[in-house]
Amino acid sequence: MKIGIDAMGGDFAPLNEIMGALSCVEECSSKVDDIVLYGNQSTIENVAKKNQLDISKLSIVNCLDAVSMQDDPTEILKTKKDSSLYRGIEDLKNKKIDAFASAGNTGATLATSTVLLGRIPGVSRPTIAGFLPTTKSTPTLILDVGATIDQKSRFLLEFALMGSIYFQSVYNKPNPSIGLLNVGEEETKGTDELREAYKLLKNSSLNFIGNVEGRDILAGTSDVVVCDGYVGNVILKFAESFIPLLKQKVKEYSQKSIITKIQTAISIPALRGALQGLDYEEYGGVPVLGVNRISVVGHGSSTPKAIKNMLKRSIELANSNLIDKIQSSIKLNT
Amino acid sequence: MKIGIDAMGGDFAPLNEIMGALSCVEECSSKVDDIVLYGNQSTIENVAKKNQLDISKLSIVNCLDAVSMQDDPTEILKTKKDSSLYRGIEDLKNKKIDAFASAGNTGATLATSTVLLGRIPGVSRPTIAGFLPTTKSTPTLILDVGATIDQKSRFLLEFALMGSIYFQSVYNKPNPSIGLLNVGEEETKGTDELREAYKLLKNSSLNFIGNVEGRDILAGTSDVVVCDGYVGNVILKFAESFIPLLKQKVKEYSQKSIITKIQTAISIPALRGALQGLDYEEYGGVPVLGVNRISVVGHGSSTPKAIKNMLKRSIELANSNLIDKIQSSIKLNT
Repeated sequence: MKIGIDAMGGDFAPLNEIMGALSCVEECSSKVDDIVLYGNQSTIENVAKKNQLDISKLSIVNCLDAVSMQDDPTEILKTKKDSSLYRGIEDLKNKKIDAFASAGNTGATLATSTVLLGRIPGVSRPTIAGFLPTTKSTPTLILDVGATIDQKSRFLLEFALMGSIYFQSVYNKPNPSIGLLNVGEEETKGTDELREAYKLLKNSSLNFIGNVEGRDILAGTSDVVVCDGYVGNVILKFAESFIPLLKQKVKEYSQKSIITKIQTAISIPALRGALQGLDYEEYGGVPVLGVNRISVVGHGSSTPKAIKNMLKRSIELANSNLIDKIQSSIKLNT
Repeated sequence: MKIGIDAMGGDFAPLNEIMGALSCVEECSSKVDDIVLYGNQSTIENVAKKNQLDISKLSIVNCLDAVSMQDDPTEILKTKKDSSLYRGIEDLKNKKIDAFASAGNTGATLATSTVLLGRIPGVSRPTIAGFLPTTKSTPTLILDVGATIDQKSRFLLEFALMGSIYFQSVYNKPNPSIGLLNVGEEETKGTDELREAYKLLKNSSLNFIGNVEGRDILAGTSDVVVCDGYVGNVILKFAESFIPLLKQKVKEYSQKSIITKIQTAISIPALRGALQGLDYEEYGGVPVLGVNRISVVGHGSSTPKAIKNMLKRSIELANSNLIDKIQSSIKLNT
C-alpha cells in the first residue's frame, strides 16, 4: 500500500503536509508501506530541517512545478505537467501508488483526475461531496459541492447513487437515506429538473425519502443531501462562516461591560468544547467520486491533523471496493 | 395611518398577533391611527378574553375563513376570498388601509399581493428578501428567498435594484454594495445566466462589487446578496438551523462529565447574550418588493415582539416612498 500526497497543495504546504504524513506513518505503520511526498525536494527537505522533522521514513518524488489556488483547473493539463499534482495523479493512473491526496486547488484535482484517470462507465460528471455536522450521531454528506454547477436531473441521480455508496462505506450504514434539496417537501416543488430528479430518485434502488429543505441539512433528516454544485458550494462555504460569526458575537457581548467580560471568560472552555463537535478536521478529505482510482481532496487550510485524517481516509478507500460498487450501482439504476 | 394585520396567520395566531398589535399601539400611538385585525371576530375576542388582553384599542374586520400554511398559494385567489389574508390585501388595494402584514403562508401572501395589488411597471417578478446577521454593524439583505426559483439574469438584476432600494430605506445608507452569489469571485464563474447577470449588474447604476461566495454572506462583504430563489430559500432555512445545532452540541458537551456540566451551566448567560446578536425577531418582517402597495410578510413562528416589529416596519414603509423609488430605478436600468 503506497499513498501519494501533494506536498505543495494547501495553504500551509509543505509543512502541514509533512507533519500530517509523519503522523499517519506513525499511527498506521501496519496499514501503509510507503507515503510518497510529491513536490520540490529541496523545499521539502529545507522545511523539514528547519522544523527538526525526520522525514527519512517518507519518500519524495521531486517535481519542479506546483499548482496554485489561482491556477485555472483546465490549464493544468496543458501547462503544468511537472507539477506535484499532475505527477501524483499520473503515478496513480500508472498504479505506482494506490491513492493520491491533495489539499490544494480542488478544481484542478477534479479536472486532472477526470482526464487522467477517466470516468467510471456510466458516470456523466465526477463529483465532490462535503460532510456537515448534524444534531444526530453521524454527519450529513452533501453533494455536489461545486464540480457541476448545472442543475440536471440525470446528474442529480448520479450524485445520489455515488453519495449513497460513499456514505455507506464511511459510516458502515446499509442503505443510507437520500434527500433531494428543494424549497419544499412536496413532489411538485422546484424547477423542472428538480421535479424530474424526484421521479428518477423515486424509481431508483435508493432509500429516497423525498425532498428536504435547508433546515434539514444540519438536522440530519437524511444521511445524504443531493443538489447541484452551485447551491452545494454556497452552502458549504456558508456553513464554514458560522463559527467566525459566533466568535465575533461572543466578543461583542464580552465588551459590553465588566460583568459580560467575566461571564465570557469563564465560558470559554464550554464554548470551545461544544464547538469541537463542529470540527471539520475530523473528516480529513473526500474522494473525487466517479473516477477510476482513489483521488482525495482536502480543505485548503488543512491542519496537520486534517492532513493525517485525509491520508488515513485515502488508505481506507484504497482498501475498499468503492469504484466497483459505484460502477454496479450506476449500471443498475441508469 | 391605518395598518392591517392577518390575525389568523402565523404559528401562534391569533394570540401573538393580538399581543404584538397591542405593543405596537402602545409604542407608536403618535404614528398610527388604527391597527386592524383581520380574522374571525369571535376567535379573536375569546383568545383576548382568555389572556386578559384589552383589545378595545384595536379594530376587527370579521373574516370567516383563514389561509393555512398548507394551502396552495395559487388556489387562495379562487377558493379563499373570505380569508383574513385575501380580505386584508383587498382592503389594501382599495386603500382602506395603508399597509398589510401577515406572518402566515408566505407564498399565499406573495401570490395574492401580486395579483390583487399588481406589479410595479417594469418588474417581472415580485420578490421577498431576508436579513442575515453579519460580523459587521448591519445585516446582509439576501434576495430572492423563494419567490422565483428560476435563475434568470433579468430577474437577478431586478432583485438587485429592489434590494438596493430596500436596504437603503431600512439602514439609511446611500448606494449599498451589491454582490452576486456565485461559486467564485471571477467574472467567468457560474452558469450562463449568472455570467449574464454579472454583465447587467456591472452596467447598471448600482454599486456592484462583483461576485460573492457563500462565506461572504455572514462576513457582510456586501450589503445586499443577489441570488435565485432556490439557493436563497435554502440558505435562509439553513441559517435558521444553526442555533439548534449549537444548542445540541453544548448539551452534548455538558453531558460528558460533572466538570463539563458545571462549565456549561456557568456559560449560559454569556452564550445567551452572544446569541441575541443573531436574533431574527429584530427584523420583524420584509415587504413583498415589486408590488404597488406595502404588503409585509413575517416569520411563521413570530413572537409577539417580532409581530410588533413587523407592524412598526409596516408603518415605516407606508410612510416611505419605496414604491416610487423602485419604479424609477427599474425605469433607469432596464
